Amino acid sequence: MAQEKEAIGAMEWKIKMAGGSSESLAPTKARGYPGIAWLALKGLVVGLVMKVWNFLKKAWDMGHNEPRKVIHCLKVGVALTVVSLFYAMRPLYKDVGGNAIWAVMTVVVVFENTVGATLSKSINRIFGTFLAGFLAIGIHCIADLSGKDVEHFITGFSIFLLASAATFSRFIPSVKARFDYGAMIFILTFSLISVSGYRVDQLFDLAKHRMSTIIIGTSLCIVITMIICPIWAGEELYMLITRNMDTLANSLDGCVADYFNNSGGFAGDKESDNKLLGYKCVLGSKATEESMANFAIWEPAHGRFNFRHPWKQYLKIGALMRDCAYCIEALNGCVSSENEVSELTKTHISNTAIKVSSDSSMVIKELARTMKTMKKSSAIDLLVGEMSNSVLKLQEDLKSLPKLFINPQQLLQEPESPGNDNKTKAEAAAVALMDIIPLVTLTSLLVEIVARIEGMVSAVQELGKLAEFKAAGDRKANQNQTTNKVIPDQSALQRV
Amino acid sequence: MAQEKEAIGAMEWKIKMAGGSSESLAPTKARGYPGIAWLALKGLVVGLVMKVWNFLKKAWDMGHNEPRKVIHCLKVGVALTVVSLFYAMRPLYKDVGGNAIWAVMTVVVVFENTVGATLSKSINRIFGTFLAGFLAIGIHCIADLSGKDVEHFITGFSIFLLASAATFSRFIPSVKARFDYGAMIFILTFSLISVSGYRVDQLFDLAKHRMSTIIIGTSLCIVITMIICPIWAGEELYMLITRNMDTLANSLDGCVADYFNNSGGFAGDKESDNKLLGYKCVLGSKATEESMANFAIWEPAHGRFNFRHPWKQYLKIGALMRDCAYCIEALNGCVSSENEVSELTKTHISNTAIKVSSDSSMVIKELARTMKTMKKSSAIDLLVGEMSNSVLKLQEDLKSLPKLFINPQQLLQEPESPGNDNKTKAEAAAVALMDIIPLVTLTSLLVEIVARIEGMVSAVQELGKLAEFKAAGDRKANQNQTTNKVIPDQSALQRV
Repeated sequence: MAQEKEAIGAMEWKIKMAGGSSESLAPTKARGYPGIAWLALKGLVVGLVMKVWNFLKKAWDMGHNEPRKVIHCLKVGVALTVVSLFYAMRPLYKDVGGNAIWAVMTVVVVFENTVGATLSKSINRIFGTFLAGFLAIGIHCIADLSGKDVEHFITGFSIFLLASAATFSRFIPSVKARFDYGAMIFILTFSLISVSGYRVDQLFDLAKHRMSTIIIGTSLCIVITMIICPIWAGEELYMLITRNMDTLANSLDGCVADYFNNSGGFAGDKESDNKLLGYKCVLGSKATEESMANFAIWEPAHGRFNFRHPWKQYLKIGALMRDCAYCIEALNGCVSSENEVSELTKTHISNTAIKVSSDSSMVIKELARTMKTMKKSSAIDLLVGEMSNSVLKLQEDLKSLPKLFINPQQLLQEPESPGNDNKTKAEAAAVALMDIIPLVTLTSLLVEIVARIEGMVSAVQELGKLAEFKAAGDRKANQNQTTNKVIPDQSALQRV
Repeated sequence: MAQEKEAIGAMEWKIKMAGGSSESLAPTKARGYPGIAWLALKGLVVGLVMKVWNFLKKAWDMGHNEPRKVIHCLKVGVALTVVSLFYAMRPLYKDVGGNAIWAVMTVVVVFENTVGATLSKSINRIFGTFLAGFLAIGIHCIADLSGKDVEHFITGFSIFLLASAATFSRFIPSVKARFDYGAMIFILTFSLISVSGYRVDQLFDLAKHRMSTIIIGTSLCIVITMIICPIWAGEELYMLITRNMDTLANSLDGCVADYFNNSGGFAGDKESDNKLLGYKCVLGSKATEESMANFAIWEPAHGRFNFRHPWKQYLKIGALMRDCAYCIEALNGCVSSENEVSELTKTHISNTAIKVSSDSSMVIKELARTMKTMKKSSAIDLLVGEMSNSVLKLQEDLKSLPKLFINPQQLLQEPESPGNDNKTKAEAAAVALMDIIPLVTLTSLLVEIVARIEGMVSAVQELGKLAEFKAAGDRKANQNQTTNKVIPDQSALQRV
C-alpha cells in the first residue's frame, strides 16, 4: 500500500513537472497567436488532467478508507455479470420471452448499499408490480367488454386517475418513508401494461414474464447482498449512534477542559479541533439516522438484532443526543466569545467544572457501553448520582466564588491587589460580576447538559426494556464502581 | 369547499354510528363462538375502514392545505396520458420500433415535483444513456473483432468493470449530489445494450430508438413541468429561507418576552408553542435546503432569479440561521429549567432584555425583507447599531443589578426585607448570585445570538453583492428609519 502511494506521488510529481515545463518553455518557442493558442490548449489539457487526477486521488483515498464501499461496488459488478450470463443462456432466455432484459434492469435499480435498502426496494418492486398488474388486467378486461371506442377512453382515464392518485400518495409522509419506490413502480407497471394493451394480446404472458424476471432479479440481489459481506442498515444505525455517543462525550469533555487549561478561550490546535468535531457530527446525522431506521425495519434478524428490534427508539436517542449537542454548541460559542476571565476566578471552579464535564462524559460513555454490550448497566445509577452531585458542588462553588460583590465602578477606582499567591485572601476580595459571566453561563449550560443527559439515560433504559437487554455481569459493574467511587457529598445534596 | 367538508363530516358520522350500533346490537343477537367470530370480523372490518378513512382524511387535508401538490399529481397524470396517446398513434409508434414503451417509462421516472429536479433527472438520463450507448457500441465492436470466444469474456468483463466503477462514483459526494441518477442510468443502459449485443444485430437502431424515445419523454416532462404551474426549486429554497427567518425572529422575540411576562418560566399555551415552533423548523430544514439548492442550479432563469443565481449562498445563510437557532434552543432550555428568579430582579433587566430580543428580531426581519424585495437595505446598519447598543445597555443593566453581592449564607440568616414597593432601596440590597444565574445566562446567550445575527447580516450582504441586489428605494428606507429611530446611547457605547 505504501509502495502504491509512493508511485502515485511520483506520477503526480511528473505531471506537475510536465505542466511546469510546458509553461516555462513555451514563451521562448512561440510568441504569435498560434503559440498562445497552443499554450492555452496545453494549459487547459494539463489543468484537466490535474483535475481528473485529483478526483481519482480523492476517490482512491475514499476507497482506501472505506473498503466496504469498494466491496459493495464489486458486489454490484458480480450481480450484473451473473444476470447477464443468465440472459446469455438461451434456454432460460426463451422461457421468459424477450423480457429477460427486465431482470438486468431490476438488478441495476434494486441493488443498494445496505441489506435493508435492497430488501425495501425489492419488496416494493414486487408488490408494486403485482398490484399494478392485477389492476391493469382487470381494467383492460372491463375496457375490452365495453367496445372499441370506449376502450381507449377507459384506458386513458384510468392511467390519468391512478397515476395522479399514486403520485399524490408519494407525498404522504408515512407512504413516502416506506413505499415511495413501490408507488413509482405501481405507476410504471400500470402504464406499461395498459399501454401495451393497445397492442399485445398476450397480456397475461407479459405480466407473468415481467413478474418472473423481477423475482429472478430481486432474488439474485437479495442473495448476493446478504451473503457477500452484508452491510445491515440496522447495524449501521447502531454503530452510528454508539459512535456519536463516544464523540459527544469526548467533545463535551474536551470543550470544558480546553477552556480551563488554555487561558480565556479554546485552543485552535488540531487535537482540540478534532474533539470539537464530535458534536458537529451529532448535529448533522439526523437524515442518515432516519433513512437507516427506515431501512432497518425491513431487515430480518441478524447478529444481535432480532426482527422486531426497536429501531425507532434509536431515533429518539439520536434526537436527545442532538439536544445535548445544541447545548454544547451554545457553550462553545458563548464561552469563547466572552471577555476573558481572570485566572484566579477560573481556577476556583475549574476543578468542579471539569469534574462535572468528565462525570457527564462518563455517563454518556457508560450509555454507549450499555448499547455496545447490550447489557443493562448496573453502574449507570451510581454514575448519574455522581454527576448530579458534581453539578450541585459546581453550583456551590460558584455561589461561594465572590464573597463580596461590589459595584464595579468602585473596583475600577481601586487598583487590583497583587494577591495571586494568597488564594483565600483574594477570594474574599471583590469580583466584578462581568468577570464571572462566562463562568455563570458555563455552569448554567452544564446544568442544562446534565439534565439532557439524564433524558438520554432514560431513553437508553427504555431501549434496554424494549430490546430486552440482559442484566450486567457483576465483574463489569464492580470495576466501574471501584474506579469511579466517591463518597456522596451530603452537604451538596441539600439543594439550593 | 365548505359543503364538501360538511358532507365528509356527515359520512364520517354515519360510519361511526354504523360501527357503534353493530357492537351494541351484536351481543344480544349471538353469544356462541360463531357470534364472537362474527363480532371480531366486524370489528376488524370497521377498524380497517376507519383506518383507511382516517388515512384518506389526512390525505384530503394535505391536498387541501397544499394545492400545489395536487396540481403536481394532475400534471403527472396529464403527462402520462399524453405519452400513452403518443404510443397509441401507430405512425409514431412504428417510427421508433417497439421501443415506444421507453417514452412512457421515462415520463414515470423523470417527472419530479420541482422544475430543477425534473431537469436534473432529464439531463442525467440523456447524458447517461448517450455516454453508455457510445461506450457499449465501441466495446461491442472491439469484441466482435476478437472472435466468438473472447467476445463473451470481453462483454462480461466490461459490464463488471464499468458497473463497479460507476457504482463507486455514486459514493463520491460531488457526483452523488448531481449525477447520482446519471450514473445509475449509465450502468442500466450499458448493461442493456451490452446484453442485447448477444442477440440483436441492429445495435445502432436500438441505441437510436432508445435515445429518441428518451428525448421525447424528457421533453414532454420538461414542457409540462415548466408550463403548467411550475414549481421552481430555487424559489422554494428562497421562500423557505425567508420564511424561516421570519419564524426565527418571532421565535426569539416570543421566547424572551414570554420569559419575562410569565413569572419564572414559559407559558405552555398554544400561541407560545407556535412561536417556539419557529426555531425547531429552522433546526430541521438542513436536508430540504441542500436538496433544493442542488436542484436549483439546474434551473434556467425564472422570475427574479437569473441562471447563475448564487444558490450556495442561501445554504450558508441557512447554516448561520441554524447556528442562531441552536442558541435559542439552549436559551429556551436553560432559562426554563433554572430556579425561579425573583420578580424584582427580573423587572430590573426585563425592559432591556426584551429590547435586545426585539431589536434582534427586527434585524432578522429586515434581512428577510431585504431578501424578499431583493433590494439592499439602507436601514440595516442602523438596526444593527441599535441592536449592539441594546446589548451594551443590557450588560450595563446586569452589572448594576446587584450593587452589593453578599455571601448567600449571610443572606439566609437575615430575613428578606419587604421592600418590594421601594425599588431603588431593594436594588441596593444584597442579591444572591444563584438568584440571578438565569438572567446572566439569558444575557450571555442573547449576546451570543446577537453575534450570530451579525454573521447572518454579513452573509445576506454578501448575497446582495453576488446576486446584485438593487439599492433600496428612499421611501422604504425613510419609513424604516422613522419607525425604528432611536437616539444612540453614547454612554452605552463605551464598552465595558
